[in-house]
Amino acid sequence: MTDTSVSQYMATLGQAARRAAVLLAKAPTKAKNAALVAIAERITASAEAILDANRQDLEAAAALDAAMRDRLTLTPARVAAMAAGLREVAALADPIGTVTDMAYRPTGIQVGRMRVPLGVVGIIYEARPNVTADAAALCLKSGNAAVLRGGSEAHHSNQAIATCVQAGLEAAGLPGTAVQVLATTDRAAVGEMLAHPEYIDVIVPRGGKGLIERVSREARMPVIKHLDGVCHVFIDADADLDKAVAIAVNAKCQRYGTCNTMETLLIDAPIAPRALPLLLARYREAGVELRGCESTRAIDPNVLPATEQDWYEEYLAPVLAIRVVQGLDEAIAHIRQYGSQHTDAIVTENLVRARRFITEVDSSSVMVNASTRFADGFEYGLGAEIGISTDKFHARGPVGLEGLTSQKWIVIGDGHLRT
Amino acid sequence: MTDTSVSQYMATLGQAARRAAVLLAKAPTKAKNAALVAIAERITASAEAILDANRQDLEAAAALDAAMRDRLTLTPARVAAMAAGLREVAALADPIGTVTDMAYRPTGIQVGRMRVPLGVVGIIYEARPNVTADAAALCLKSGNAAVLRGGSEAHHSNQAIATCVQAGLEAAGLPGTAVQVLATTDRAAVGEMLAHPEYIDVIVPRGGKGLIERVSREARMPVIKHLDGVCHVFIDADADLDKAVAIAVNAKCQRYGTCNTMETLLIDAPIAPRALPLLLARYREAGVELRGCESTRAIDPNVLPATEQDWYEEYLAPVLAIRVVQGLDEAIAHIRQYGSQHTDAIVTENLVRARRFITEVDSSSVMVNASTRFADGFEYGLGAEIGISTDKFHARGPVGLEGLTSQKWIVIGDGHLRT
Repeated sequence: MTDTSVSQYMATLGQAARRAAVLLAKAPTKAKNAALVAIAERITASAEAILDANRQDLEAAAALDAAMRDRLTLTPARVAAMAAGLREVAALADPIGTVTDMAYRPTGIQVGRMRVPLGVVGIIYEARPNVTADAAALCLKSGNAAVLRGGSEAHHSNQAIATCVQAGLEAAGLPGTAVQVLATTDRAAVGEMLAHPEYIDVIVPRGGKGLIERVSREARMPVIKHLDGVCHVFIDADADLDKAVAIAVNAKCQRYGTCNTMETLLIDAPIAPRALPLLLARYREAGVELRGCESTRAIDPNVLPATEQDWYEEYLAPVLAIRVVQGLDEAIAHIRQYGSQHTDAIVTENLVRARRFITEVDSSSVMVNASTRFADGFEYGLGAEIGISTDKFHARGPVGLEGLTSQKWIVIGDGHLRT
Repeated sequence: MTDTSVSQYMATLGQAARRAAVLLAKAPTKAKNAALVAIAERITASAEAILDANRQDLEAAAALDAAMRDRLTLTPARVAAMAAGLREVAALADPIGTVTDMAYRPTGIQVGRMRVPLGVVGIIYEARPNVTADAAALCLKSGNAAVLRGGSEAHHSNQAIATCVQAGLEAAGLPGTAVQVLATTDRAAVGEMLAHPEYIDVIVPRGGKGLIERVSREARMPVIKHLDGVCHVFIDADADLDKAVAIAVNAKCQRYGTCNTMETLLIDAPIAPRALPLLLARYREAGVELRGCESTRAIDPNVLPATEQDWYEEYLAPVLAIRVVQGLDEAIAHIRQYGSQHTDAIVTENLVRARRFITEVDSSSVMVNASTRFADGFEYGLGAEIGISTDKFHARGPVGLEGLTSQKWIVIGDGHLRT
């Protein structure tokens, strides 16, 4: 497409999204659930067509590295998982229309808040076709229209899934334009999405840091995002040694590539000589490369020296930075300086220090005696997750359906006047 | 000051605000309340000095129009009201640290949310010295540091109040830099506030449309604001005539210059011939200029013709636009097209249409059988109001203490691991 035609295409699509959003905002729960189930049925029935489209994408994407290729690949099991995910979202409670805090005021009016959709949600993601179904489901259930732009390598897969989404929406009597998957792979379309708050109310970028930085810089509407997950576990002097070792190993080794994985271990000086040898043995067993401060290396000289840069690093890999600190204040100060306000945990049996850690660490998730890996929409009971936000505005932490909504005030009177 | 020195001054001030924010976020409720009361005491004790400073401002501001001069003027009663306002904020519940939704998950972890301050709040306002005390109080109580920039015409008054604020903070053991009132009237300082998200987390502009537009355009951090208050009352065919007349008169005439004043009256065609003559008589009695659609003028030819522009207009004056509509759908469509998502009301005895109006009108406050004038932080029970937001992100509608806060997730376990 030429730039003008991309721009025209996106304007038409944006206007259709706006119109669909009005209808979707007032769509009954029953219709939204029926659409989710109908989409799931169509995905199941169209599994072969979706897998064929995916094979086309994979053939064209010979240059991708193994990890990207894996994310792009669909299998019968992954197609079935997409359909199951849609049914799970259908089973979640509908947040829209929920009224809370409704109470009489002294004047006699009743005042409360009603949950409402945001409008049109734009999602920009990499070549992961399952995100197309997931994102469509969450936007639809939260009463928002969606504009989805997946990585161009997944174009045929996404179009095949989009066909199911559109048919399912229409079967349930909802506008097919409620979820629009871009039909163009032109990169200019991303710029168009970011430039038009009159069409898109919020952007959710899902992918690498480069994408998220670009979206944050260019978007003229709010962005739900996190840049880094430099998560810490602090083992306090009064930690239970068994719990501390188990949590610090789980937080690092359960999965290396996730944003809630621990990247720096902080350990209180009095407990370091006992805890570190146990921990280092476990990390070595798991093949984790260890980089420590001077005090760590005084306990175990085989640990590599950590540089200042290591404290800032989100390795997303079997590498761990370790620092011995002098007490809670130093741990909190370290987290404040180097952390990314994502998820930080303390391991301690001491109530006063647990209470201080929770209050004073300014992260989207703060934990006591639990693995940072729990920072997740499903683990928190949100039922689903569209992303994690490390910002303080609007959604914070794992973002489920509620993060895709807002509230309005409602007032019921019986002829009440202000005096 | 030169631009460089303004920039240096603002950087120093911003860094001090950041440091103060860390201390304020963990300040006990008792200390914050003690500071609020100490500030109130100092304002009462310094009433003469504040009034002297205000006289200096008034002498220098001979060119101001009467309304601006009135807002700039302090009297002994207004100084007493500032002190009373501080004590009222001290009496409000502290939102910070409140834990909600704490529940066990199937894994055994407890997950909940804790309310936290935003950090540093920047407030830019016009020459209304009482805002200095109000804004300081709300930021302090919500655990935020504040950077206040009031209109330059109120400079001496603001400095006199700032002296009391600083002394009160220090008397309660809190940093005097927790609330900083700019010591410069240099306009470049506003640009510096908007340019530095590393110092200021959120900006609240309070004042005319020009100020709010500039802040929205330039601010590199989130803005809590509303641009327009084009509020509607829709009198449905099934309205009780007495309630309808009383509400439509109150919504327009109780105060003309407020953002929650009705600017356009929508009236259902079947009830228009009965309701309009009663209403027009009341408006004329109150001296309201009337501008109506053709159907309105068919009922009363003395109503001036309304132009398309009238439907967009926030008069903030004794002027009213009136339109006869054909039923609820047309009323909702009118509000969607011309409204400002501030506050809209329906008057009806019909449950189905009341329910639809509440659900389908996408405004920050939606009312049934109540005057739009109720859209207000005090009337809603927030205890205070820093402004009204018509955005859907973060705070929406009247913004009190809660709008100046965020939440973090807290997780408590006892050695829990993710499997």
